[in-house]
Order: sequence, then C-alpha cells, then structure tokens
Amino acid sequence: MARNASLSGFPEWLPQERLVEQHVLDTLRRIFELHGFSSVETRAVETVGQLLRKGEIDKEVYALSRLQDDDGAAASGAREDPHQLALHFDLTVPFARYVVENAGYLSFPFRRYQIQKVWRGERPQEGRAREFTQADIDVVADGDLPFRYDVELALVIAEALSALPIPAFKLRINNRKLAEGFYRGIGLTDTAGVLRSIDKLEKIGAEKVAELLKSELGATAEQAAQALALASIRTEDTSFVARVRELGVTDELMEEGLNELEQVIAAAVKSAPGSVVADLSIARGLDYYTGTVYETVLVGHEALGSICSGGRYDALASKGSRKFPGVGLSIGVTRLVSRILSQEFATASRSVPTAVLITLADDDSWTGAQEVAAALRARGISTEVAARADKFGKQIKYADKRGIPFVWFTDNEGVHQVKDIRSGEQLPADPAAWMPPAEDLKPRIVVAG
Amino acid sequence: MARNASLSGFPEWLPQERLVEQHVLDTLRRIFELHGFSSVETRAVETVGQLLRKGEIDKEVYALSRLQDDDGAAASGAREDPHQLALHFDLTVPFARYVVENAGYLSFPFRRYQIQKVWRGERPQEGRAREFTQADIDVVADGDLPFRYDVELALVIAEALSALPIPAFKLRINNRKLAEGFYRGIGLTDTAGVLRSIDKLEKIGAEKVAELLKSELGATAEQAAQALALASIRTEDTSFVARVRELGVTDELMEEGLNELEQVIAAAVKSAPGSVVADLSIARGLDYYTGTVYETVLVGHEALGSICSGGRYDALASKGSRKFPGVGLSIGVTRLVSRILSQEFATASRSVPTAVLITLADDDSWTGAQEVAAALRARGISTEVAARADKFGKQIKYADKRGIPFVWFTDNEGVHQVKDIRSGEQLPADPAAWMPPAEDLKPRIVVAG
Repeated sequence: MARNASLSGFPEWLPQERLVEQHVLDTLRRIFELHGFSSVETRAVETVGQLLRKGEIDKEVYALSRLQDDDGAAASGAREDPHQLALHFDLTVPFARYVVENAGYLSFPFRRYQIQKVWRGERPQEGRAREFTQADIDVVADGDLPFRYDVELALVIAEALSALPIPAFKLRINNRKLAEGFYRGIGLTDTAGVLRSIDKLEKIGAEKVAELLKSELGATAEQAAQALALASIRTEDTSFVARVRELGVTDELMEEGLNELEQVIAAAVKSAPGSVVADLSIARGLDYYTGTVYETVLVGHEALGSICSGGRYDALASKGSRKFPGVGLSIGVTRLVSRILSQEFATASRSVPTAVLITLADDDSWTGAQEVAAALRARGISTEVAARADKFGKQIKYADKRGIPFVWFTDNEGVHQVKDIRSGEQLPADPAAWMPPAEDLKPRIVVAG
Repeated sequence: MARNASLSGFPEWLPQERLVEQHVLDTLRRIFELHGFSSVETRAVETVGQLLRKGEIDKEVYALSRLQDDDGAAASGAREDPHQLALHFDLTVPFARYVVENAGYLSFPFRRYQIQKVWRGERPQEGRAREFTQADIDVVADGDLPFRYDVELALVIAEALSALPIPAFKLRINNRKLAEGFYRGIGLTDTAGVLRSIDKLEKIGAEKVAELLKSELGATAEQAAQALALASIRTEDTSFVARVRELGVTDELMEEGLNELEQVIAAAVKSAPGSVVADLSIARGLDYYTGTVYETVLVGHEALGSICSGGRYDALASKGSRKFPGVGLSIGVTRLVSRILSQEFATASRSVPTAVLITLADDDSWTGAQEVAAALRARGISTEVAARADKFGKQIKYADKRGIPFVWFTDNEGVHQVKDIRSGEQLPADPAAWMPPAEDLKPRIVVAG
C-alpha cells in the first residue's frame, strides 16, 4: 500500500502495486467479455431515495452537498430529502435503476459486467475499506429468466477466480428455496427469521443459534436440532441431496431447491473440481435473494470474509407490472488485491511499462532518438528517451533505478547498439527490427511459487 | 447517451456507446504506456483543506457527510473544517498530494498517467458535466525538471489525440515567460493582471481588453496596443519568433520563453504537422503555470471548449524546502466521448462482445455446448450458450437481436456447423480450430467516413 496513506479506509497503491491491480482488472474484463458480458458503468451518485429503497444500510451512505451551497440546506436536510445525492454503496442498486431507465434500449436477457468504485462510511478494518472496487456480473431478464443462468454464473465466476493470482478458493453455494421449504416442512413458518439466525452460525456457534431459534422463533428443541442439522451439511459433490433426504422432511419448495442446487453443484464441480461446495449454512443477509445464493472464501484466509458473493433475485427491479429477475455475483476486487499485495501472492516484474531507454550521445541527438523510439513503439515496445545528454553512466543509472531492462545507444555514425543492463550484454540492433525477449516486453505479474 | 438519464450532468452510456468510450480509454492507456508512463489512481476524496489550497474554485466542490452522522455537524461545518472530506475536482491536486506522500517510494523524474472520474458541482451544459472522466499525464521531478519534457509531452499528447476517432484538432501552445517578459519589457509590471485580461480576448474582443488594460492596469494606449499585438500572433511554425521580434521589445525572460516555445513548436510541428499552433493569446486561467501552456480545440467544434489542457509548473508540490516541478496535460475524456457519440464520429460494429451463440438441439445438450464454448473461448472467441432448447428459429432470433454474428449447431451425432446469420452461409466447423473472420472477432469501432 502507498506508504503514508493519509486517510484510513481509502487505500492507494504504488505504481508497482497498481500493476497487480490492473492485472486483476484486465483478467476479469477479459473473462467476462469472453462470456458475452457487456461493460456498463453507472454514475457514482444516486438519490438517497433510490439507495435506501431496501431500507437497511443507511448508516453506511455518504451524502453529497455543494460546499458553497449558500443556504446549507441540502446536507442537513439529507435524511428527509429523498432527492438528496449520495455515493452508491454497491453496483446492484444502480444497475437496477439503469435497467429500468433504459429497458427500451437493452436486449434481454441482458448480460452486463460493471467494475467500479463504491463507497461505504464504515469503520475501516482489515479487508473493509471505505472506498473500494467491485466487479459485478449479472444476467437480467424482462419477465422470465431461465434457471440455467444460475448454473452458468457459477461457472463464469469459478473461471474468473481461477485466473487470478490468489490461493485456492471455495465457492460455497446454497439455495433459499431448499432452506425455506425445509423450515416450512418442519413447521417453522418465519423462514426469514430462521435464515437470519442461521446466518449467525459462524459467528456465535450452534448452541447459541439453537437458543435463538427457541427463544425468538418459538422452535422446539427438535425443530432447532433439525434446522441445525440441515445447516451442517457441506459436500463437495451432489451427495448433499441424500444427506438432506435422510433428515426425512418433505416439502415441495424444498424439492425445487434441492433440484436447483443439485444442477448448480453438478456443473460447477465438473468445471472447477475442489473449488465448489454445497454449503447448506449459507444464508446471505440480504433479503432479496430468492433462490441460489453464492459466497466465496480464500482457503486459509477465511477471516478475510467473502471475496465474491451473490445470488438469484426474482425481482432485481420492476417497472409497473413488469418484473426484471436477475442472477449475479460481485467480486470484492480491493479486498482481493489488498491480500494479494500484503501476502505477496503476486508481484510485478518491474514498476514501469518502459522496456527501453534511448540514451543521448549529445544534446543534439534528441530528435534522432525520438525517431528510434517511434520505430520501437510502432512494434509495441514501451520506450523512453533520455531528457539530457548526461554521461552514459548516469543515463544507465537512471534506467537501472527505474527498472528499465534495456538501454539503447546510437553513435555519431548512426550505429545502433542495445544493452541488457542486467547481464551487461551489448549487441548491434536495428531500430526497425529489434525486439526484446517476450518476457521483457511488458511488466509481467509473477505469481509466488 | 442512455436515453432517460435521470440526473442532469451525470451522463451514462448504453452498452454500444460504452464500447466507444472503452476504445478511447484503451487507446489512451496504450499510448501512455508506450511512452513509459505508469498508471496511478488516487482516492476519489481529499480533505477540503487540500482541495482549496489554491483558493479559487470552492464553489464547485462536493462535500461528503455520513448520512446518519448523528450530530449532523460534518456537513454544516464544512466550510470551517479543513479535514472535511470532499470529492476531487481534478487529478492534479490529488496527484501532487500523492507525490509528496510517496516521494520516498517513487523514482524521479516520475512519469504517471491517471484516468479517473472527477466531480464538479457546476451548472451542467453541453460539454460540461458534473461527473466526468479525465485522462492526465504528468512528468514530475524532485528538484530540477529538464525543459525537454515540455517538448516531449506535446509529442505524446499529439500522438494520443491523433489515435482517437475525432476530427482534426489544434494544439495551441504558448509560454508564460514569453508573455510575462514581453509585458515587463513594455513597462506593464502587473503581468498576472495583464494575463487575466488577455485571457478574456476570445470572450469580449480586443477593444474591450484594451479598455480593461487601460482602466484596470494603467496601461497607455500604446502599451495596450503592444500587448494585443503580441496576443494576435498565431503561426503554424516557428515564424512567431520573427513576428515577436518585429514588435521591438527586449527582455531576458521573454528571450527565454521565445527560445522554449520555439523548441516545442519545432518538434511538435514535425511530429504532428497541421495540428500545432504557436498561439500567443493562450493564457490559461490557473495561476500556477510558469512556462509552457497548452490547450486544444476540435476544429469546427471550438465552442465545445478545450479538450486537452495543461502546462509547466515550477512547483506542482513541495515538501519543506524540496520542490517538485512538473509538466502535464489533461484530456477531457467525457467531453470528447459525448461529442464522438452525438456526432457519430465513431460507432461500435455491434453492441455485445459475443461473436458466437451456441444453440441447443435439446435441453440435455447444454453441458456439451459448454464444452464447445470453452474450446472457442480458449482461442479468444467470445461465446454464449443458449439457456433453453427453444426452436432454432427462436434461438437464432435471440442472436440476431443482440447482434451476435454467428450461431453454432451441434447435432445428435456430434456434427458441428456454424452459420453466419447475416449472409445465411452455413458450414461445417471444428470447435478446436474454427475462427471467425478477424473483423468479427470483437466489436470494432467504426470511424465515420
């Protein structure tokens, strides 16, 4: 991280760290586009009314006001004024608005990826920043969205995460219908309440969740035990189906959920063996998920929290009687990049794009040096020209300090030579033909052994 | 523009428009990196104290406050609290802070490009948004920055603008030393005041500027005439030097400026003939420029304002007695992209990345279709798989509606065929070898004839 970052929760990267972040962003973009997702960006601001539609997280929102607004009313009246502007805290709410506003110009099912910064006024801590980048993919339909997209998105995201310089991950998948149907089947009707309690399992443990279920939801000891038995099921294949059946509960919605989750797991395990788990404890806090839910941890870094989460929503947005169901996932890019950098999972082979520095024999040779540089750049070789005809030693030292691997010399007879300053090897070279070795052309991202 | 953009001044693009914007951003990035500039991003927020250091533009700043901050103090006390957070309004102020904070970890002269959104709470109008993207390049030194970088940056920016799908541009260049020395030479000592008056030339005309010079700066009629004579000089080569000399003024600083501007113009005209003008009326409002100043208009779209501006500053930042001089330029990406889209200077050949849709003969063939898709994607071909085994006609119609050029069929015997839905031509194809024509591989940006 930039060493003196002066605002807690607003990470900034040094140039060599930014190269790692760019590699992550470029990789995600490439994979999303290979799967037919279109890029969309939305504005950074929404109205407070739009942001708080779901009601829950107003504490985290940064409101905007013009500093010199003379009556000063905008900011202090923020809580009452739904037209007040504020920074978006995720990319789902803005995307839902975008879909509704532009429905007439999009062709459905609409596949989009969106990589942008979001802001939350939370207390900063490891893995939780106030400004961070998310990378989202969603498929949204106008009317009906085939379940198959739930399967597809698991495959796309597993492929995307596998392409990043991160340790092994576990994509944990569950299905709300399965859980809700099961709770209903054992006689617990406040299924949302049960989900909320189960969501605390990792934090407070099974015993306390059982108590919650009994005290707050009126569950019997047996009902609590059944709910916990379901949540304890974790399988890396479709054997969870048999495990659920062993619990002896029957319910139509549960069957639908079992069937859906089986399809997702079967396909995902095949595509990313060892990285996918059916985890029947996954609840996901947000209320609008209605089927498949996903979350993802880095193996050995579980305390970092989920690095990629999402799910199916029957109504991402609506416009009159028109419904737009969707399924999507969001990768926490900044959280991942912070971890990649702090653990040195990957580093850049050099900190500058430059492969070659053209040295100057004397001050008049600058124009000729520009021509050599242009010839190299035309073949995609990043090139700088020295600004001053210092002694060669000083020019070479400049290249060395910046991590530029090659320096170029042109003498007064127009003879060209190029020197690898790491090995010291110096050879004649033709500006119209010379290429550096492929591994030196651009900064590479080197993944830790 | 996205058709129902619901907030004035916050433009959003439809997917096919976003492709044009991405092309512009990718092109700028490629050229900046070819010239050895490193990518840096800074956080979106700065403290108000940092933003208002230069004192001038506080009316445009969006301050931030946590919506649920219980005492509500942050926002209303904003004007008094220099630690209050606010959105940056350009990329120069944040970069100056970044350089000072990280000076120990950067190697100088430091070359960086920075492409990010900035926010200004101005009244929105054509070419002036409240949220917009800038693309900046700067070279910054620790101590002394050779003048040659002023020449180099003109070349880089001319190359970058030439690579964009925009009409002819004029890069207008002047030099503050030339102007200030000249004013001093004719006895006008408040050179900043003269610059401010000359800056109004295009808006109010020569006669009114002469009046201003006389009434506000105490110039004689002859002094005013001399100052206006200098400002009337515009040459597409270095002949401005002779034109200035004809005015018969001598001054040491003027000579230095003449010499610098001559070097910049000579090199830039050679590299981008017809696109560069020595324009001695260019003043640039901002006070911190101390030598070369640049601004750029699109020919035939002068009313749009400058699309790329910048200059040399002797102290971009300082840290105790340490000075960081710099030279840089900033491209108004959103202003350019808005104009490219509204005038259809360029359009995307299709609105989705997808080149091929794999159709389904029946619902069980989805898994096999995924394998075909994976084989195509491995060669960089963007591919979607149909979600449902609808009638082929319906599947083809889906591809057609989305602008996907090819559909792929696999029959029950495993025979593969691919159809170009524009020509109707259908041919046998091998998933491990087939490639679409190069022009169909990705959406292309088609420049208007």
